Formats: sequence, structure tokens, C-alpha cells
Amino acid sequence: MPLDLGAKGSCHIGGNLATNAGGLRFLRYGSLRGTVLGLEVVLADGTVLNCLTSLRKDNTGYDLKQLFIGSEGTLGVITAVSILCPPKPGAVNVAFLGCPGFAEVLQTFSTCKRMLGEILSAYEFMDAECMQLVGHHLRLARPVQESPFYVLVETSGSRAEHDAEKLSSFLEHVLGCGLVTDGTLATDQRKIKTLWALRERITEALSRDGYVYKYDLSLPVDRLYDLVTDLRARLGPRARHVVGYGHLGDGNLHLNVTAEAFSAALLGELEPYVYQWTAGQRGSVSAEHGVGFKKQSVLGYSKPPEALRLMQQLKALLDPRGLLNP
Amino acid sequence: MPLDLGAKGSCHIGGNLATNAGGLRFLRYGSLRGTVLGLEVVLADGTVLNCLTSLRKDNTGYDLKQLFIGSEGTLGVITAVSILCPPKPGAVNVAFLGCPGFAEVLQTFSTCKRMLGEILSAYEFMDAECMQLVGHHLRLARPVQESPFYVLVETSGSRAEHDAEKLSSFLEHVLGCGLVTDGTLATDQRKIKTLWALRERITEALSRDGYVYKYDLSLPVDRLYDLVTDLRARLGPRARHVVGYGHLGDGNLHLNVTAEAFSAALLGELEPYVYQWTAGQRGSVSAEHGVGFKKQSVLGYSKPPEALRLMQQLKALLDPRGLLNP
Repeated sequence: MPLDLGAKGSCHIGGNLATNAGGLRFLRYGSLRGTVLGLEVVLADGTVLNCLTSLRKDNTGYDLKQLFIGSEGTLGVITAVSILCPPKPGAVNVAFLGCPGFAEVLQTFSTCKRMLGEILSAYEFMDAECMQLVGHHLRLARPVQESPFYVLVETSGSRAEHDAEKLSSFLEHVLGCGLVTDGTLATDQRKIKTLWALRERITEALSRDGYVYKYDLSLPVDRLYDLVTDLRARLGPRARHVVGYGHLGDGNLHLNVTAEAFSAALLGELEPYVYQWTAGQRGSVSAEHGVGFKKQSVLGYSKPPEALRLMQQLKALLDPRGLLNP
Repeated sequence: MPLDLGAKGSCHIGGNLATNAGGLRFLRYGSLRGTVLGLEVVLADGTVLNCLTSLRKDNTGYDLKQLFIGSEGTLGVITAVSILCPPKPGAVNVAFLGCPGFAEVLQTFSTCKRMLGEILSAYEFMDAECMQLVGHHLRLARPVQESPFYVLVETSGSRAEHDAEKLSSFLEHVLGCGLVTDGTLATDQRKIKTLWALRERITEALSRDGYVYKYDLSLPVDRLYDLVTDLRARLGPRARHVVGYGHLGDGNLHLNVTAEAFSAALLGELEPYVYQWTAGQRGSVSAEHGVGFKKQSVLGYSKPPEALRLMQQLKALLDPRGLLNP
């Protein structure tokens, strides 16, 4: 299955499609828009739209299924799907690294792409505050020396010894030139899970820290962490924690702010500031979490009026009586 | 650039997008629907629709660009694009193989996926008649012993010695168990080009053979060649050649029939037979070549009436006065 995400224990495939879920292996297997081969959808008027092919290539007219992927149930109800599943990789390795700064996180990523190439399957980052939170609330042990940033690199390949060689050359190089100050490597399933847990359980640790303000942004990678730094300065002691983590390989920042309780004043400091900052970088105010109830009013930060008008026209065409998710 | 195709010397990127071109590296880099990040489109009413982001992830509303990819200028005119380009592979190798039968072509493909995994970048096949035609009309030399089928396997990876090892193990295995009867390997650019020319210049050889009836079909791979065999028996001496070649890794058959001149009687033998046969396998009557002028009437073989109706509604919504390509 080309999609994997932290919510895998509770999410449903129909919901994944309706929200165009991205997740942890987007970097390797790409968007659902590329891996979904066919859909069956029930339209608002009861029509069953059968586009349930399993062909890789089909250019007979418009690709209607794309309308429904990511449309959050506003245009139709997805009832069946066919997905292209890649061969399961024979060898999976994980490296967990400490980096001295965000510039080094970025350079390590470039190095990764060059030296690991086709076997790179995830490049996730988290900052020091994230690590403190999973340590404090979940008692997870820090696997490397304390650092301002941590990176999880995963490789998935077809031949274990080749992957191990590529990963060792990479590690030797990044440790040698100071991009990485400490690192640990996992090849057995148990240790791989332990390292992934540090990244996957950040959400859980945050929820134990107090009320959480959550943002899911796409930004140009070189500016990605500046927003976290800016916001920390802007909020000062009014926030308990301002943390940044996410799928760096996809330019996707999960920005989270915790406080003792919800406060309209703090929300006022965050919004529209975060959205304006993102729009200033031509980023997306919803990278992978969709629109839902909360983000209807902020789409304009990432989409021009012409696009919003066409979306409304499509909604009116497919759901003229307003029977589906509004 | 993640797209490559035989027409690379003459095609334009706008046309590639408007036709959702597939091409030779679809197997590795996937569909343009996954690799196109943003589009700018001029709509029929003159509106400039700016969806020209270069973000990898953006779930702020419907993915409007998908409407225009593959719509052949019927919904708008594409004026700018951003495409995700993968790192250029450091090592490229090509193997050209002879297979004793189509079953062996399929088993060799399964073996390829298992043993070459992430470095497999193309798996093309051609039959013995294709090889005869490129030999006869273009004077290209056959690089391996005469065989019923030929396969071109390409690998693209980041580390030459690893790729060479994977490819040698693969060749040793397929030659050892009789899936492949003869093979040759190319690592230098000149020989790689010579081997690719055998596959890429089939169209040219066909055009020198007489009038050509062309079909571009998606079929389940295990039935893919049966149509060629069926058609050869059906047409007998009325056809000069009935040949099959194409992107086997994507289930994409290029079926071509040559004759001395165009004949309505021969066309009557071919159509709707070829389309009915394809529909019987739930295939696509246009895998990658789109609809154009010639295939408007045959879309119903691959799409249900509900889908065609929705396509007409989208066309009416976006081009109510019929100003664009009809």
C-alpha cells in the first residue's frame, strides 16, 4: 500500500481518498492522485459513477476520479477504489540523526537525495522542543545526543547489502563534514519502530501538553522553519511550546502551539498571522489536512478568486440541491 | 524531466500536458497527474486561472489543474506549468533480451520487478515482426539471436556498481532458467542509444511498410498479446503485417496493422472488433494517445454513459459558447 500515515490505526481508506491524504511515504510513492487507478462514486442524484478501472493508463476523456479525490465528500461519496501497490521493499533501514541547525537539516536532505537516490523513502524532521515533549509526556528516550534538530531518514530497497552500503557512505559523509553531529542506525524491525515512534507520537505528546493550536502548511523548504522561529518570538511566554516538525522532503511543516487553555487572545495572535506569513511565501494553508469545518474561510490565502469561483461552479454542477457535505 | 517519449524531437510541453502523455518512463516516474505541480490556464471566457504553484502538497480545495491535464484543449488553454523533476540518475544501463514466448516476457517482467526493484525505469517489448520491419526498412541490426519476442529493460540508479550487480544477477537468473534465450548489455551512451532506437523507430519502420492502422490500448498484461495473435488469424493475407509492441510495464499495447493501401473492407474487419475485444477485457481504447478527431465515437467502449454525461456537463460548464476545441 503506497500510503502510510500516523492515523493508520483508526483512519479509513474512503476518508484517505476523500481528503487526499499525504502521509509518511509521499516522498517515495507520490500523491494518491498518481497511485489511485480507479474509483466508484455515488453522485448526489443517486447515479453510480463507475470509473473503477485497474489500468495504469487510460486517456479516454477527462479523468473524472480526480474530482472526487480530496473533495471531502462535497461532490460525491466514494464507494470503491483500486490503488496501484508497489512491490513491498525487501530491505528497510532507518537512520536517526542530530543536526546542529536548520541549514544543516536542509543540506543533509540534499545529500540524501544525491547519495541515497531511489531508495530514500522518508525524510522527516523534528525540533528540540518536540523531542523534549515526547520525552517528558511519553517517556520516550532520546536515541542520539541532544541537538537543535533531529532527522529521521528511511530507505526502502530491494537488496539489503546495497542499501546498507549506500546508507553507510551517506552517514560517513554527513558526520565527516559536520552536517550531522550524532546518529544511530536501525535495521531490525523493533528498533525501526522505536525510532519511528519518536516522530509519529509527537501529536500525542502535544495533546498531553495542553490546548493545541495546529497548522499544516506547505512552504518552500528553505523558509520552512523561519515561521516557527518568528512565532516563538512573537508569542513569547503566552505560548507553552511552539514546535515544528513534519515531512521536510515534501515541504510540509506541521506547526503546533500549546498553551494552558484555549484563549481568543492567543488565537488572535496566531491568525491571520500564520496564514498571511504562508501566503507571503506562496505556500499552502492546508498541505495535507484538507479544508473541513475550520479552513473554509482561509482558502483565499492559497487560491485566487478565479479558482474559488470555479470550485463553486463545480459544486453547483454536482450537488445542485446541496445534499452532500456543504 | 520525468517524461520522455519517442516524439521528444517535435512535441511541445503544452501538448504533452493537454494529452496527458505517458511515454517511456511512466513505469518509473508515473503519470503527469502526479508530477505536474501547477498549471496556469486561460479559460474560454478569458479568465486567467492561476494554479501555478510549485508546492508538492496542497489540499486547499479541488485540484483544478487535473481538469485540464489530458483534456486536449477542450476546457482551456494551458499557458504555464511547473513540473516536479527527479534528480538525474547517475547510472543508466540497458539490457536487450530475446524471449522464447509471451509467457516468458511476462515472467521476465515479474522477475525484473523483484530483482531490480527501485532501479527499473523501463520495460518495453516488441515482437519478431517489429524486429523484421526495423531491419528491413531502416537497416538496424538485430543485437541478439532471433526470437519470437524481444524486451528492452532499462535501469536508472544513483550508484553504478550496485546497479550493475543487480542487473548481472537478474540476467544470470533469467538466462539460467530459460526465460531469456539471449541478451546483451549496454552501459555506454552510444550502445544504449542504438538499443533504444530498435524500439523507438518501430513507428518509422511501419510508416515505410504501407498504410498503417494504429491502435493504442491498455489491457490486462496477461491477455495483452492475445489480441495480436487473434487479429493475425482473423486478417490472414489481407494484412501485410500485424505487430504488437509497447510499454508492457504499464499494460500498454501499441497494435499496428499495415497493408498496401487504405481499404474500407480491412477497416471493417478491424473496427469495431478491436474495440469490442478491448472492452471485453475492461481495457482502454486509448491508453495514452487521447481522443482527438478519431476516437470520439469509441469512448463508450471504455467509459460508461454516466461518465460521458458528466464529461459533457463539464464541457458545457467551462465552454458554454463552444469557443474551444469541440
